[in-house]
Amino acid sequence: MAVKIFVTGGTFDKEYNELTGKLFFKDTHINELLKMGRCKADVSVRTLMMIDSLEMTDTDRNIIVESCKRAEEERIVITHGTDTMTETAKVLAEQVKNKTIVLFGAMIPIKFGSSDGLFNLGSALAFAQSLPHGIYIAMNGRYYNWDNCRKNRDSGFFEEIK
Amino acid sequence: MAVKIFVTGGTFDKEYNELTGKLFFKDTHINELLKMGRCKADVSVRTLMMIDSLEMTDTDRNIIVESCKRAEEERIVITHGTDTMTETAKVLAEQVKNKTIVLFGAMIPIKFGSSDGLFNLGSALAFAQSLPHGIYIAMNGRYYNWDNCRKNRDSGFFEEIK
Amino acid sequence: MAVKIFVTGGTFDKEYNELTGKLFFKDTHINELLKMGRCKADVSVRTLMMIDSLEMTDTDRNIIVESCKRAEEERIVITHGTDTMTETAKVLAEQVKNKTIVLFGAMIPIKFGSSDGLFNLGSALAFAQSLPHGIYIAMNGRYYNWDNCRKNRDSGFFEEIK
Amino acid sequence: MAVKIFVTGGTFDKEYNELTGKLFFKDTHINELLKMGRCKADVSVRTLMMIDSLEMTDTDRNIIVESCKRAEEERIVITHGTDTMTETAKVLAEQVKNKTIVLFGAMIPIKFGSSDGLFNLGSALAFAQSLPHGIYIAMNGRYYNWDNCRKNRDSGFFEEIK
Repeated sequence: MAVKIFVTGGTFDKEYNELTGKLFFKDTHINELLKMGRCKADVSVRTLMMIDSLEMTDTDRNIIVESCKRAEEERIVITHGTDTMTETAKVLAEQVKNKTIVLFGAMIPIKFGSSDGLFNLGSALAFAQSLPHGIYIAMNGRYYNWDNCRKNRDSGFFEEIK
Repeated sequence: MAVKIFVTGGTFDKEYNELTGKLFFKDTHINELLKMGRCKADVSVRTLMMIDSLEMTDTDRNIIVESCKRAEEERIVITHGTDTMTETAKVLAEQVKNKTIVLFGAMIPIKFGSSDGLFNLGSALAFAQSLPHGIYIAMNGRYYNWDNCRKNRDSGFFEEIK
Repeated sequence: MAVKIFVTGGTFDKEYNELTGKLFFKDTHINELLKMGRCKADVSVRTLMMIDSLEMTDTDRNIIVESCKRAEEERIVITHGTDTMTETAKVLAEQVKNKTIVLFGAMIPIKFGSSDGLFNLGSALAFAQSLPHGIYIAMNGRYYNWDNCRKNRDSGFFEEIK
Repeated sequence: MAVKIFVTGGTFDKEYNELTGKLFFKDTHINELLKMGRCKADVSVRTLMMIDSLEMTDTDRNIIVESCKRAEEERIVITHGTDTMTETAKVLAEQVKNKTIVLFGAMIPIKFGSSDGLFNLGSALAFAQSLPHGIYIAMNGRYYNWDNCRKNRDSGFFEEIK
């Protein structure tokens, strides 16, 4: 069961710049995490962009949509900043049919010792392989339908709307 | 969607005894991993035993079977040593119906920096929430039907039989 | 051989705020690091402040100087941001005599997987126990006399001036 | 100030074999730890052997002694299993003069998340650069003269004899 992984950035992939003390993007950590997880699922990774999701534009979202449409795989995982994850999910839901697409991210960069990134990657990959067609968000060990969740900015957790 | 997690031991939960240099079992690390994963799924954890799966007896397997039968939850995750994971899966398949049960473990103790345990926990929890009734093994970022996989002892990876 | 450890903040103790994505200070990590190092040296820890060394004022430096003077211990270790470490060292050299004082910090917060903090703590504690009276900076596995080093802001490493 | 680092094995460098569940030796982790510590001290590393110190023979100890004698550096750090560290220190004290030699090890393999190895390396390197000629053991954030310490096998800590 082939799964495409599109990388778009987000907290998940942020690094610490020891000269400036600022967080920044370099390469994705997806591949080293897949190795750590001894992953043998049939995945292929492609980086579309490396940005903070607060800076994601309509053009960026269009790139994600087009990439999902053009992907041969029916099952897709997207790494994404949590702040605007539901917005991208909405655009995908409007434009991409007949695919299972799972967006996920991390609250803590995976380079930090206490990151939720590896756990979330494991669950996103699993949901992508087992859920029916549709657009989902996988965070906090659960999945949410794209039109039924939001990030609670006070707690940092995702929650159902209804 | 309520998920029961039964802990039975295995490499996943092994600790290093710094006085003897041997690996041993103390408490499970499931709760700290769920916290690290910021898990908000409706899970409850119960430790059934803390043993190496090579030492698992018929009596032990019976405890696991009975615990799965008695659990109110329809969806169950079991931590288990990888060496005899398929044997326990077989016994479960014979005796437990109408439940989704996912067994998983780790090749490296989660106390090691490079463990696959957190990734596997994320995927096992996700599969338990999304797969139909049946007995499954979740390792290497995939799931396997209980009667269609084995651990390749040379590579350390699980693989399909057919 | 009693050693006093004064905590002043710096990159060493920075945490990641998962709600804002910013780095911030909470409690010092010195005690957990001493425990990880199985430290049995006769140390006592006191937090003087928790600040970025770029924001350190004359008043702050005066607190550090007075704390060193008043300390019963002849041997003192100070955690400090690397950016103005040499400035504080200079003030200490002018005002504190007959003590061995070692300043150190970290280029990467110790909560990151790849931090130099634990290594630097080990070396700072060792230098404090073995060097003659004077003011020193311990970074990069070495010690520097207070009046003979600077931080190279391009490389992130300390270097001798002469 | 040039420092030679001789590697002999010990818990410090043990790895987990995920196929057998046993600990074993591969390559030393000294170089990656020096890099993590952003070490700029003038060190050169040489692996003499990779063994458990309980299996160290007179021949092995002779290799260590001869290597210390032949080293151009006056300052030497030796990684060593903690169980027979004091025995090797005794042989060194009898045969190597006019050098500062610091033995250290770890109670927990550095590949474990909670290892004391990085802390101990930092302190051993510092003591090697600052202590007068003699043979020392650096563990638990302290140094001990070779003829005044033993490992307490109940607590796992080193302690003074007198």
